[in-house]
Amino acid sequence: MRRLNVELGERSYPILIGPGLLGQSRHLARYIRGRQVCVVTNETVSPLYLARLLDGLPECDLIDTVELPDGEAFKTLETVNRIFDRLLERRHNRTTTLVALGGGVVGDMTGFAAACYQRGVDFIQVPTTLLSQVDSSVGGKTGVNHPLGKNMIGAFYQPRLVLADTDTLASLPERELAAGIAEVIKYGMICDAGFFEWLEDNMGRLLDRDADALAYAVERSCQDKAAVVAEDERESGRRAILNFGHTFGHAIETVQGYGNWLHGEAVAAGMVMAAELSRLRGDIGADVVERLRALLGLAGLPQAAPDGMTVQQFLEVMAVDKKVLDGRLRLVLLCGLGDATVCADTPRELLVRALENCGAV
Amino acid sequence: MRRLNVELGERSYPILIGPGLLGQSRHLARYIRGRQVCVVTNETVSPLYLARLLDGLPECDLIDTVELPDGEAFKTLETVNRIFDRLLERRHNRTTTLVALGGGVVGDMTGFAAACYQRGVDFIQVPTTLLSQVDSSVGGKTGVNHPLGKNMIGAFYQPRLVLADTDTLASLPERELAAGIAEVIKYGMICDAGFFEWLEDNMGRLLDRDADALAYAVERSCQDKAAVVAEDERESGRRAILNFGHTFGHAIETVQGYGNWLHGEAVAAGMVMAAELSRLRGDIGADVVERLRALLGLAGLPQAAPDGMTVQQFLEVMAVDKKVLDGRLRLVLLCGLGDATVCADTPRELLVRALENCGAV
Repeated sequence: MRRLNVELGERSYPILIGPGLLGQSRHLARYIRGRQVCVVTNETVSPLYLARLLDGLPECDLIDTVELPDGEAFKTLETVNRIFDRLLERRHNRTTTLVALGGGVVGDMTGFAAACYQRGVDFIQVPTTLLSQVDSSVGGKTGVNHPLGKNMIGAFYQPRLVLADTDTLASLPERELAAGIAEVIKYGMICDAGFFEWLEDNMGRLLDRDADALAYAVERSCQDKAAVVAEDERESGRRAILNFGHTFGHAIETVQGYGNWLHGEAVAAGMVMAAELSRLRGDIGADVVERLRALLGLAGLPQAAPDGMTVQQFLEVMAVDKKVLDGRLRLVLLCGLGDATVCADTPRELLVRALENCGAV
Repeated sequence: MRRLNVELGERSYPILIGPGLLGQSRHLARYIRGRQVCVVTNETVSPLYLARLLDGLPECDLIDTVELPDGEAFKTLETVNRIFDRLLERRHNRTTTLVALGGGVVGDMTGFAAACYQRGVDFIQVPTTLLSQVDSSVGGKTGVNHPLGKNMIGAFYQPRLVLADTDTLASLPERELAAGIAEVIKYGMICDAGFFEWLEDNMGRLLDRDADALAYAVERSCQDKAAVVAEDERESGRRAILNFGHTFGHAIETVQGYGNWLHGEAVAAGMVMAAELSRLRGDIGADVVERLRALLGLAGLPQAAPDGMTVQQFLEVMAVDKKVLDGRLRLVLLCGLGDATVCADTPRELLVRALENCGAV
């Protein structure tokens, strides 16, 4: 078992990574402070892992399960309200612990529910997808979508524990594995060139689901992310580099409708756009963009805008992105492989050109 | 103008109290950091004070107003969602400031919207009722009701400024003035016996809306509350004494339906119940209960349960109150006038007797 700490003062918490963690009750028992638990999961994950998780829970007075519909389309305030309904019907109090068993959607909603239920109760992340193990379960961003924008409603709220059982990756559909790899590649691009090179050498092992390779990739991704989050928990500065590719990616997800492109797929295309824009600004060479495209290609990830999506659609959605400050679009761009920074001074013409070079019409 | 500080480290903020503050732009201008503002108010307050508030705003790029329906019945997730809709339609970004202009319901919902919009934006409280000036605008409790319980969904989220213009109390209906006085009396009961005596001597002036008496009562109430909140922001201990009378009061509000009894009226009756229970435990004399009843009577406030409300109804609703920990009912009781404490060991029989002595059937 690998163990990392996210260092956030009194809100610090461990990430445990490895095979077979789900049914080992000693892990969960240490971090459940009361005698009430509510497990939130979805209809896809529930038949696969719920029983194993329940086996690993300590003795409690009250254990409930909420099964949500599966998919980004359900990441709404209404769905979170179903969690509140259950908690209140079953009289969970302030000492309850919510356990998120599933991917990023389940984790984001459960974390937000925990942040808001009786103004805050404990929660534990048990991510079961690569994407959630390397990204969304770490760092405390929780929330839901709004018809007019992704993740527009939410809270910064840290879990007490992240338990990443790498065995769960075995059941992941290929497309979702690849989508998770997009975020893994992101860490290489923004802050860890050595990891990027490791990925160039080991992509085959990851796609073959080699247990050691997966565990290493999850650990190193979490390390990279935890270091950035520890520096800037509430994203007032450096944390924004984690959004590399995401402003473009969110535009793709918004226009395609949530759930049609997977988040990681949209981020993959978005990273190419951000890299291409960095190249047009003269900050990186064409070789960096090429290496990114090649690595995404190996993973079977998209490297361009969806068919038919227009430059105008990108610009419109990006104007309400959270990264817009005082009317100026702030984008995460590259200064080199493994070196990202936030820029607020991108000329519109360059942005349009980068979008066109990446397939927007 | 009177000025207090709520001391919460980097989340500290001032409370400004006095007549005529609403239209003085220098106060708001200092605490609005961006160039976007969204004022949230309700249909009752809007015609009275919105224009004056807008006059007092600094120059901005974007000023919007959201007018909500009036009343506790609308303090729901759906109503908060209307604020999100407006913010997103009008493309407010992370630098926006929400201004809550109204009573506690507007303040609680606006604060919660500010806590959740893009994971947190600035907000300012401009309370226009006595209740919100002395209680809900101070301390950072925000949230909404759920059909199964009051204030069950929310966040601790501090404003950047509280601007309490005592001129707004002139337009307050008599019943709402009295409801606010209930919370004022509460501070005397739980932590400020000297203030309780002042209230016994000056209730007539308050009911006549004597400007000096009102400003003094608001200031002293805010001082008392700020001291308790500074000690225990997230209510892990002492802050709970501010809930004196509230566990009973919430039961009344829940059973009567939100909005039929005003919050302050329910708290008034609830305080008598808590005092009566303290007497039955032998912790205070009958004289303290009598002085409380008398002072509430002077203010025209209820001193007993609503007609027909049963002991069973109280017990059922109280079982889901946030103050329930590990299945034990935690109640704020008195050790003396001006001295409250949290008790988790009240025998059920005494509780039933106290409820019966206070009119529950």
